[in-house]
Amino acid sequence: MRVKDDIKQESLFEATVKLVNDVGFAASSVSKIAKEAKVSPATLYVYHKNKEDLLVSTYVEIKKNIGLSLLKDFDDSLPIRDIMRETWHKMFDYVMTHRPYFQYTEQFANSPYSELVDQEEIEKYFEPFIQVIDRGIKEKIIKDVDFDILAVFIFYPVLALANPKTCKNLDLNRDHIETAFTMAWDAIKL
Amino acid sequence: MRVKDDIKQESLFEATVKLVNDVGFAASSVSKIAKEAKVSPATLYVYHKNKEDLLVSTYVEIKKNIGLSLLKDFDDSLPIRDIMRETWHKMFDYVMTHRPYFQYTEQFANSPYSELVDQEEIEKYFEPFIQVIDRGIKEKIIKDVDFDILAVFIFYPVLALANPKTCKNLDLNRDHIETAFTMAWDAIKL
Repeated sequence: MRVKDDIKQESLFEATVKLVNDVGFAASSVSKIAKEAKVSPATLYVYHKNKEDLLVSTYVEIKKNIGLSLLKDFDDSLPIRDIMRETWHKMFDYVMTHRPYFQYTEQFANSPYSELVDQEEIEKYFEPFIQVIDRGIKEKIIKDVDFDILAVFIFYPVLALANPKTCKNLDLNRDHIETAFTMAWDAIKL
Repeated sequence: MRVKDDIKQESLFEATVKLVNDVGFAASSVSKIAKEAKVSPATLYVYHKNKEDLLVSTYVEIKKNIGLSLLKDFDDSLPIRDIMRETWHKMFDYVMTHRPYFQYTEQFANSPYSELVDQEEIEKYFEPFIQVIDRGIKEKIIKDVDFDILAVFIFYPVLALANPKTCKNLDLNRDHIETAFTMAWDAIKL
């Protein structure tokens, strides 16, 4: 039974991402999402109490996936620059192979639904990474700046680089990603 | 007559931004935009041959406005770091006071309409700024990196900082913007 439930949940997750990306939040009704996921609306309501709950948990699920994939084989005994570099490349690979998820999270972050997210739950998925940043600040390796501002130079450049619309004149390769990492590191290092 | 035409064009421009931001590209029909602008559809067709043309010229007009406002009082005789710093603060002020324009351009850049833009026309509006970057590279002040990658560290951080969803834990003030400029400069300087 568990396995069957997992498959249904996974179908609902993928269907929500697809439909919202295709037609937007307003036009993505519960019945359309259920149809796209090939489950009955009644089944959908077993897992999610309403459309809001479905949209918010889809967002949280994506953030969880990103966290898990960045923190895979995470080794916090390495020098901080090496940890940042590893994470940078992993993040780029993840964004490149999961574009629809980022299309969803960007739309979501600009929607009123974003008010409903438990930010502490999200931070939990990135905790070991946040701890490395804190350690870098304490050891005077990273600038002592609010985490939100550091994030602007660590996360956003990857999203921008991975977006084919940003770098349309650039045939992006691994060297570009490495160059951009050097620049991000120059931005955040003390 | 000219003045009256300008007012109509301006109304169409603002109505397009508003409607697209409110209901998306798909639902923004020519007749709805004309209604929002309080002009007849026939008048709209005097200025724009179809919906595509209206959407594309609205995008180009926004880019032109951004360029004009960044290059106001532009003094390319200043040291390069000072020019970048001035531009950084101007850009932040512009983004903060023209959020709907950026909401429009972000949506637009992710839409198929973006293929129809004449990129050379857009670049023209930023030409003096691009020349300063080129000079900085030649004088070995700025890293010799593709312009697209430099832009990722010059333009995107401002957009991210000005987005209230990004910096929701931060009560953003002028000091934060200055700190972020120092970081952007560290990223791009040689």
